[in-house]
Amino acid sequence: MRDTAIIGIGHTKFGNAGDRTALELFSEAALNAVDDAGIGLNDIEALFQGAALIGFEEGQVMSAVFSAADLSLGEIPATRFEGACASASVAIRDAVMWVSSGAYEIVLAGGVEKALTMGTLFATRTFAMACHAQSESAAGITFPGVFAMAARLYAHRYGISLDKLREKMACVSVKNHAHGARNPVAHFYKKYENLRVEDVLNAKMVCDPLTLLDCCPFSDGAAAVVICDASTARKYTDTPVYILGTGQGTGRPLSKIEDMTKPTARVESARMAFKQAGLEPKDIKVAEIHDCFSIAEIIAIEALGFYDWGTAADATEDGQTDIGGKIPVNVSGGLMGKGHPIGATGASQICSIVEQMRGEAPRGNQVDPVPEYGITDTLGGDFGTLCNIILGRTRR
Amino acid sequence: MRDTAIIGIGHTKFGNAGDRTALELFSEAALNAVDDAGIGLNDIEALFQGAALIGFEEGQVMSAVFSAADLSLGEIPATRFEGACASASVAIRDAVMWVSSGAYEIVLAGGVEKALTMGTLFATRTFAMACHAQSESAAGITFPGVFAMAARLYAHRYGISLDKLREKMACVSVKNHAHGARNPVAHFYKKYENLRVEDVLNAKMVCDPLTLLDCCPFSDGAAAVVICDASTARKYTDTPVYILGTGQGTGRPLSKIEDMTKPTARVESARMAFKQAGLEPKDIKVAEIHDCFSIAEIIAIEALGFYDWGTAADATEDGQTDIGGKIPVNVSGGLMGKGHPIGATGASQICSIVEQMRGEAPRGNQVDPVPEYGITDTLGGDFGTLCNIILGRTRR
Repeated sequence: MRDTAIIGIGHTKFGNAGDRTALELFSEAALNAVDDAGIGLNDIEALFQGAALIGFEEGQVMSAVFSAADLSLGEIPATRFEGACASASVAIRDAVMWVSSGAYEIVLAGGVEKALTMGTLFATRTFAMACHAQSESAAGITFPGVFAMAARLYAHRYGISLDKLREKMACVSVKNHAHGARNPVAHFYKKYENLRVEDVLNAKMVCDPLTLLDCCPFSDGAAAVVICDASTARKYTDTPVYILGTGQGTGRPLSKIEDMTKPTARVESARMAFKQAGLEPKDIKVAEIHDCFSIAEIIAIEALGFYDWGTAADATEDGQTDIGGKIPVNVSGGLMGKGHPIGATGASQICSIVEQMRGEAPRGNQVDPVPEYGITDTLGGDFGTLCNIILGRTRR
Repeated sequence: MRDTAIIGIGHTKFGNAGDRTALELFSEAALNAVDDAGIGLNDIEALFQGAALIGFEEGQVMSAVFSAADLSLGEIPATRFEGACASASVAIRDAVMWVSSGAYEIVLAGGVEKALTMGTLFATRTFAMACHAQSESAAGITFPGVFAMAARLYAHRYGISLDKLREKMACVSVKNHAHGARNPVAHFYKKYENLRVEDVLNAKMVCDPLTLLDCCPFSDGAAAVVICDASTARKYTDTPVYILGTGQGTGRPLSKIEDMTKPTARVESARMAFKQAGLEPKDIKVAEIHDCFSIAEIIAIEALGFYDWGTAADATEDGQTDIGGKIPVNVSGGLMGKGHPIGATGASQICSIVEQMRGEAPRGNQVDPVPEYGITDTLGGDFGTLCNIILGRTRR
């Protein structure tokens, strides 16, 4: 199979898109990506789109079709993927396969969501459909509840008091919000640059022990990438970013998960991606991680192999996951600071890593030296779908 | 890229599934397919599932994940595809690519829907989300309306009186319902074996000129197939059915479709599939076609190249599309007789063609001689997504 490369990225401002439709947002991101790649729309041979709840948001299913039409892409295959928050990552992983196999030379992939427009209350309720309907949604479980349980389990399992854990979790929020505040496309651009641990602790309690600032927002937004065969990438750009490995793992209902703090779907997904890339966690110098809640980032960087089980909360408090640390995590702001337009998030993560690898990250957020290898990590549902994509500045 | 083969098929009874959930239905079809293939569940390396409106039907998104868990498939990638009625076909086309590329040896693909359980009125309303939300759903367009317009346009364009066209369309219904009546898994098993043209004409008018018997039902149901590398297929079965070509095409909002009776998305999808298979329409000896409405089958078999534009209505009336005719169409009953569980339909079409190629079609429905080549045709939305899959008893 052939190597693939990203030659174009496009992103809308995350936040409140008001009256603009999801299709309009996706087209903006797509056109930005096409422009960035320096290709024409008629070079695109297929469209892969992630969108999680667009039927509930604006009464539109089959959104990939109407995006293709909106972009005048002709009759090319246009496919919608739904894997909750991981929708775009799954779409991109699939796009990579189609180009790798030689079926297509150039494709467009990305995601979109108008999550904020649903209203935060309705978004939480609607989004709970990504839990297991029979055993979880029916019991009233929503995502803040799932991750509050995960935080309590983490504290219990590693003998950390809940108060201590809350302080460590707050460090995730402070870090990611600071990065987001410096990112012009972020939902919370300029808003939380100087957030303090005590601000997080004293914010409104959402689901004990998680306060509002332990939670990512729902956002409107879209992001897209242009993917091509690696051997032709330099025709289009001097800074192609290569896709070195992808992984996807699948979870199960909470009642059948042995330990929420050690999500097997993520362990398997990461194993697959690292194996394909021929890399190890220590090679990765920048990571965009699914920080839907502060505790989620801590759990994730352990499952990915950056830290031993039970040690990432301390490492975060120690600053190891900030810029200049051992492994800078969510230097774009992550879901917390940049925002979380559900079906777009995976594509946005890729855009942020590509910016880092081009040395074009927002002022103050660039990792130095420019990272050679990076990873994205997207979680759909309560550990239901995990997708990891490993990127590099050089081919294998 | 490698050739692929279908070594197992599974199907639930289509119709009213009562209290059973979509996940239960999918597991039944999947286990049947796995049994039929003679493999173990742990041989499956990935799951590809089509499901169109499952969020609306039972408050469950990410259904592929929970199906994988229900089937104890472990952490393997499980992906949900949404392309309205074409969801399963798109999922299967994608599965074929992953096996063709060498990424997986054996995968499970299929689809599921509990469309009937929504209630026919709500199903029609909900399903209209597969139209363009801004320009069509907002104007009150539903699918019977779309195809009633198509019928009127067809009559006008080819100088057929509406009364005459109604009689020709009724022949589609009579034929497909007769086939469905002989198919034990069909929604209308034993119900309409001796339907007459006048019964169709005199049925309740749904959307002039389409009566209730010009329309397929909404159904509950699931279907699944096991796909493997063609070179190993005979390890599992003496009657592998090879996937020779796949195509996928994309439409646009109705307001931008030049001529609904000549859907370009289907022309392009079929061109792609025939090219890959190295076959022509005349080679095909059995076809499962998306007969959501009687007029839809007539339009489809012209667009696929079986008939010149404007001639398929006469050919149908002439019996050319029945068993023993030039090209037997929907010998399983099609959407009209077998039923239409939206996200499952494409997988069901494949199962029906495989049965034909094994010589195991329901009594009275077997094409003779056993067909060498067959095609499926699935339409999602109002000409939004078209997917064609060409099957054969021998490898290319």
